[in-house]
Amino acid sequence: LNSAHFADRLEAAVRAKGTALCVGLDPRWDQLPSELTDRHGGETLDAVAAATEEFCLRVLDIVAPMVPVVKPQSAFFEACGPAGTATMQRVLRRARQLGLLTILDAKRNDIASTAEAYADAAFDGVAVGKRRLPVWDADALTVNAYLGRDAIEPFLKSARRDGRGLFVLVRTSNPGAGQFQDLIANGKPLFHHVAAAVGEWTRENLGNCGLGDVGAVVGATHPTELATVRQLLPQAWLLVPGFGAQGATSADVIPAFRPDGLGAIVNSSRGITACFSPSEKRWEVAIETAALKSRSGFPA
Amino acid sequence: LNSAHFADRLEAAVRAKGTALCVGLDPRWDQLPSELTDRHGGETLDAVAAATEEFCLRVLDIVAPMVPVVKPQSAFFEACGPAGTATMQRVLRRARQLGLLTILDAKRNDIASTAEAYADAAFDGVAVGKRRLPVWDADALTVNAYLGRDAIEPFLKSARRDGRGLFVLVRTSNPGAGQFQDLIANGKPLFHHVAAAVGEWTRENLGNCGLGDVGAVVGATHPTELATVRQLLPQAWLLVPGFGAQGATSADVIPAFRPDGLGAIVNSSRGITACFSPSEKRWEVAIETAALKSRSGFPA
Repeated sequence: LNSAHFADRLEAAVRAKGTALCVGLDPRWDQLPSELTDRHGGETLDAVAAATEEFCLRVLDIVAPMVPVVKPQSAFFEACGPAGTATMQRVLRRARQLGLLTILDAKRNDIASTAEAYADAAFDGVAVGKRRLPVWDADALTVNAYLGRDAIEPFLKSARRDGRGLFVLVRTSNPGAGQFQDLIANGKPLFHHVAAAVGEWTRENLGNCGLGDVGAVVGATHPTELATVRQLLPQAWLLVPGFGAQGATSADVIPAFRPDGLGAIVNSSRGITACFSPSEKRWEVAIETAALKSRSGFPA
Repeated sequence: LNSAHFADRLEAAVRAKGTALCVGLDPRWDQLPSELTDRHGGETLDAVAAATEEFCLRVLDIVAPMVPVVKPQSAFFEACGPAGTATMQRVLRRARQLGLLTILDAKRNDIASTAEAYADAAFDGVAVGKRRLPVWDADALTVNAYLGRDAIEPFLKSARRDGRGLFVLVRTSNPGAGQFQDLIANGKPLFHHVAAAVGEWTRENLGNCGLGDVGAVVGATHPTELATVRQLLPQAWLLVPGFGAQGATSADVIPAFRPDGLGAIVNSSRGITACFSPSEKRWEVAIETAALKSRSGFPA
C-alpha cells in the first residue's frame, strides 16, 4: 500500500530527478526499430506484442535515471490484443521496479460499478471475494469527465484508498479541441466548468505539498488556455501533452508551472521514443540523447 | 469484409429477431452463478476470467435466438487482466458465429493516431506492415466526443472502411449526467450540441434504411431528453441504456423509437444476466425467461 499521498509522491519524484519531464510510451509498430520488428516479425499480434515489449523495456531502462514518471498509452498496447495487455502489465511493473511513477493514459469513463471496475483495475486491484487482485497497478489514470461528478466518484474512491491520482481531460491538445470544450455556458467556456470541478475534487484531498490528487490534462499546443487553467487550478497538478512532436516548445509549457517551478508534468512521446528512423542502429543512444535534451527544457 | 452498411445490418437483425432488445454483458464476479465461481475459484485473475468466459458463452447460447445484438462492457473484461481481454475476444467471436451483432461498450476517446489505434483494434484490425491483424472485431463501438470532431474522425474512417458503426455518448443514464451535459451554450444544452454533431456525422453516410452509421447513446432514465434527441436525430440509431435494473420501464423507452417502430436499440444488462441470486441452480432458465419477457417490451 502507498502510505504517501499521490501529489506528494509526484512532487518528491520530480524533485529527486530534477525535471518535470514525463516520457510517453506510445509504441507504434511502424516506428519501432527495424532491429526489433525484423527479429520478431509482424505475422501475429503476439509477435507484435513481443517486439513492443522489448522496445518499451529498453526505453524504461534508458530513461529511468533521468525522469520521474512515464505515461504508457493504453491504446497501443490494446492494439496488440490480449498479449499486448500482458505487455502493458509487465511494462507498468518494470517501471515501478525502476522507481518510476506511472500514469496510465486510457481516458476511461463510465458510470457506477462499471467506473469502479475500470478504477480498481487501474489502481490497487479488483475485489474478488475478500481479496483484491491487482491488474494494471498504475499510480495515476487519465479520465474523461463528460459523464459528470457521480461518474468520477468511483475513480476518486478507488484512487484515494491507496494514494493514487487522476488526471481529468480539461483542454486537449488536438487542433479541434475547442468544438465542445470552448462552448460558452454561463459566460465561460465548457473547459472552465470542467476545470472548476477538478478544483473541487482536488481540494477534497490535498497532500503536504499543497496540491491535490486530481490533476488536469491541458495541451501545450494551446498556451493561452494553459495559462488560464493554471490560474483556475492553483492546487492541481497539470499534465501537459503536446510538447515535442505535436509542436509545442519549452516556452509554450512555461505557463503550466507555478511560480515555485512545480505543479506540472510535461509529456513527450514521439519526440523521445520515435526520434530515430526505424533503420537507425544506434536508436538507444538517440533516445538517451533526446531524453537528456528534453529534460532540461523547463522548470523544476 | 462487411459489404453492407452498419445501419442496414442492424435494421435487418432487428427485423429478423423481431425485437430491439440488446443484451448487455457486464460480468461482475459477485453476480456470477456460484456453480461457476465455486468450480473455477477466485484465486487468480486467470481463474476469474475463465469463470467469466464460461458464463458469457452460456449467455450467448441462450440469448442468440432471441435478440439481434449484444453489448459486452469492456471494463469487466479488462478487470480480469490480460486473460480477461482474451475472454472478451473469444466472447465477441462466438457472438459473431451465432449471428449476433456486437457493440463493444468501451467509451473510447483520444486523438489522431491514438484514436486510430483504438478504432482499428475495435473494427477490422490493426495495420502491421501490409496486413491488418484483427483484435476485437466488433460491429460497433461506443465513443466519447468531448475531444471534438477531429478526434472522432479516425473512428469514422476506420468504421467506414468495413461497414461498422459508432455510438456517441450524448445524454448518459447516470443521475448526475446533467452536470456538464445540460450546461446551456448558445441557448441549448451541451448534449444538443453533441447531438447536432452526431447528426452531421451520420448524414455523411446513410444506409438504404435511411439511417446512418453514427448513433447516439441516450439513457432511458431521462425520458424527456430521450424524446428530444429522437427529434434532433431522425437519421441516427439510438442506443438506450438504463432499461431494467437501472429503473427505466417499457413506457420510458417508447420515445426512443421512430413512428415506424425502428431506430432504437434498448439495452438491458443486469435485468437479464444478473436476474438471479448466485446460488440459483436454474440460472440459465432465469436468464432465458428474463430475456423472453424483456424482448416483447417495446416496438419492432
